Amino acid sequence: MKRVAIGIDIGGTNTAIGVVDSEGKILYERKPPMATPQKRENPDLTQSVSDMLLDKYINNLSVEIKTAISMVKQINPEIEVMGIGIGAPNGNYYSGTIEYAPNLPFIGIVNFISLIEKKFPEFKYIKLTNDANAAALGEMIYGGARGMKNFALMTLGTGLGSGLIVNGDLVYGADGFAGECGHTTVVPDGRVCGCGGRGHLEAYCSATGIKRTVYELLAKYNDSESPLANIPLNEMTSKIVFDAAEKGDTIAKEVFEITGELLGRSLADTVHYLSPEAIFLFGGAAAAGDYIFKPTKASMERHLLPVFRNKVKLLPSQLKESSAAIVGSSALVWKEMEKN
Amino acid sequence: MKRVAIGIDIGGTNTAIGVVDSEGKILYERKPPMATPQKRENPDLTQSVSDMLLDKYINNLSVEIKTAISMVKQINPEIEVMGIGIGAPNGNYYSGTIEYAPNLPFIGIVNFISLIEKKFPEFKYIKLTNDANAAALGEMIYGGARGMKNFALMTLGTGLGSGLIVNGDLVYGADGFAGECGHTTVVPDGRVCGCGGRGHLEAYCSATGIKRTVYELLAKYNDSESPLANIPLNEMTSKIVFDAAEKGDTIAKEVFEITGELLGRSLADTVHYLSPEAIFLFGGAAAAGDYIFKPTKASMERHLLPVFRNKVKLLPSQLKESSAAIVGSSALVWKEMEKN
Repeated sequence: MKRVAIGIDIGGTNTAIGVVDSEGKILYERKPPMATPQKRENPDLTQSVSDMLLDKYINNLSVEIKTAISMVKQINPEIEVMGIGIGAPNGNYYSGTIEYAPNLPFIGIVNFISLIEKKFPEFKYIKLTNDANAAALGEMIYGGARGMKNFALMTLGTGLGSGLIVNGDLVYGADGFAGECGHTTVVPDGRVCGCGGRGHLEAYCSATGIKRTVYELLAKYNDSESPLANIPLNEMTSKIVFDAAEKGDTIAKEVFEITGELLGRSLADTVHYLSPEAIFLFGGAAAAGDYIFKPTKASMERHLLPVFRNKVKLLPSQLKESSAAIVGSSALVWKEMEKN
Repeated sequence: MKRVAIGIDIGGTNTAIGVVDSEGKILYERKPPMATPQKRENPDLTQSVSDMLLDKYINNLSVEIKTAISMVKQINPEIEVMGIGIGAPNGNYYSGTIEYAPNLPFIGIVNFISLIEKKFPEFKYIKLTNDANAAALGEMIYGGARGMKNFALMTLGTGLGSGLIVNGDLVYGADGFAGECGHTTVVPDGRVCGCGGRGHLEAYCSATGIKRTVYELLAKYNDSESPLANIPLNEMTSKIVFDAAEKGDTIAKEVFEITGELLGRSLADTVHYLSPEAIFLFGGAAAAGDYIFKPTKASMERHLLPVFRNKVKLLPSQLKESSAAIVGSSALVWKEMEKN
């Protein structure tokens, strides 16, 4: 028998499903066209409409899971599916619920896992957590953190998520929602964050935060020579800033310097809390390589107590960005099997 | 048989030793006159002098431990000593070493536990950690955190220490030194901290930080009417600030407001990292009651993501300050027994 796990990533605009073996190899992958309108486009969403959308979503997802299983079994009848791991925004590992997810079309608290369990009573391991926690598990089980018992992973995407591993297990905290490092304060009374708070790490060091720094510097220098001066906010990406830096643009370079300074100070706090063996950076902004890693590492070291200096590795995630979400979610299954 | 544990607290100026039962009751307690000169008063300390001082210290401590055991056995011959727990600055749980402790007269890294083990081969459980971690264990085993699996304890003393409990165990991190929340940044480029860094929590919210805020406000308002205006820096204590607040002094009240605002914001970060069930405040500054708890709680709630609001308890430690160090250290023994 060849053991596999199903990984599902539920996003605001897409759902991805994959079948993953114990080495992290994807045997089957699909992004079915079952996107649902985001709540912000759906201001009149009522409880009954939410229930109906949820019911439809669960049915579609179950069909997709069954299809995935039959597809991989056609290729290799020896395959044994061990369970289902799900990554979702505001996913609660303890209760298996998705709670007040701002970008999903479900109202309030949804008992997601119990709905999936009803469809798949044959699986012992059906678990859910948020996407950053799933990525950290993926890093531990398939990626650069294999063998590590204490590390942190930061996802620098539209938001800034984090998964914290202590003593070989995810930190879920008392209520299942630990690891929200993106909402720690790095600039008191600073920029307004997407959550409504001020000066949060996410408002500066996520891909969105990097964009905001670009426009702050464009406003400051009014530099019409910069290639960034030709790009509107809604088209700006970390990749464009990286390309500008590669061409020697001083604004792009300063953006990464500022981002790294703040991120490094914040990661020094992470070290002061948890003393991890390594911190992994994941996501589009992390792809800027030395432009982001060098100033971040320098700032982190400068802000550390002497006892922690030159001990903590700052590393790029070894998960492929395109598949990390399903690979990470599938890792939940192997982790549960290890616990049992 | 009645099981007891020995708790030892090693401080810069004092050593305390106690015999503690499994309920946290102290059966025997002594602060032997074996204080050693602090390193800062001893700038010419050489390795050979350090070795000699250490040797003498270990011998004296062993005599004290044997005396403690024979004293409690005289009273109750049924007593069984289960082990020795030691709290020391820069104490490393994993290696049993005390590393570069700034206020102890030993140079470099001292293999403290192996020296004690040689003196007491009959004990299976001999463990060491730093004082704040010991206090957190004490809170979990004897105090207000009984039954909690996720909480944090902050010691607001001369410095600001912290002990973090995740999944029912202390967070030691990769190297044994996790939980240095006092050295996270709360005011970027702010006050110089005792460690040489800037803007650290310890520089604002320890008892020392509170004193500094007093003099900052005295400088700002030049208020000769304040009772605090008659106290020199070297005589100022949190108790004096508390007494002034009780008498209605506006500077004293503002000191606690400022301290609480910063501490609360920092504790919101603690929640964003770890989502604890409760955060305990310990030490002299925490004795100011509502003056410190009210603004801290208000600030913490204001800085939390909505998902965490009104969930996390902010509580005074239930350990007596005078005995918490030995009681906390003794808790290391019960915790080890639980693990084995």
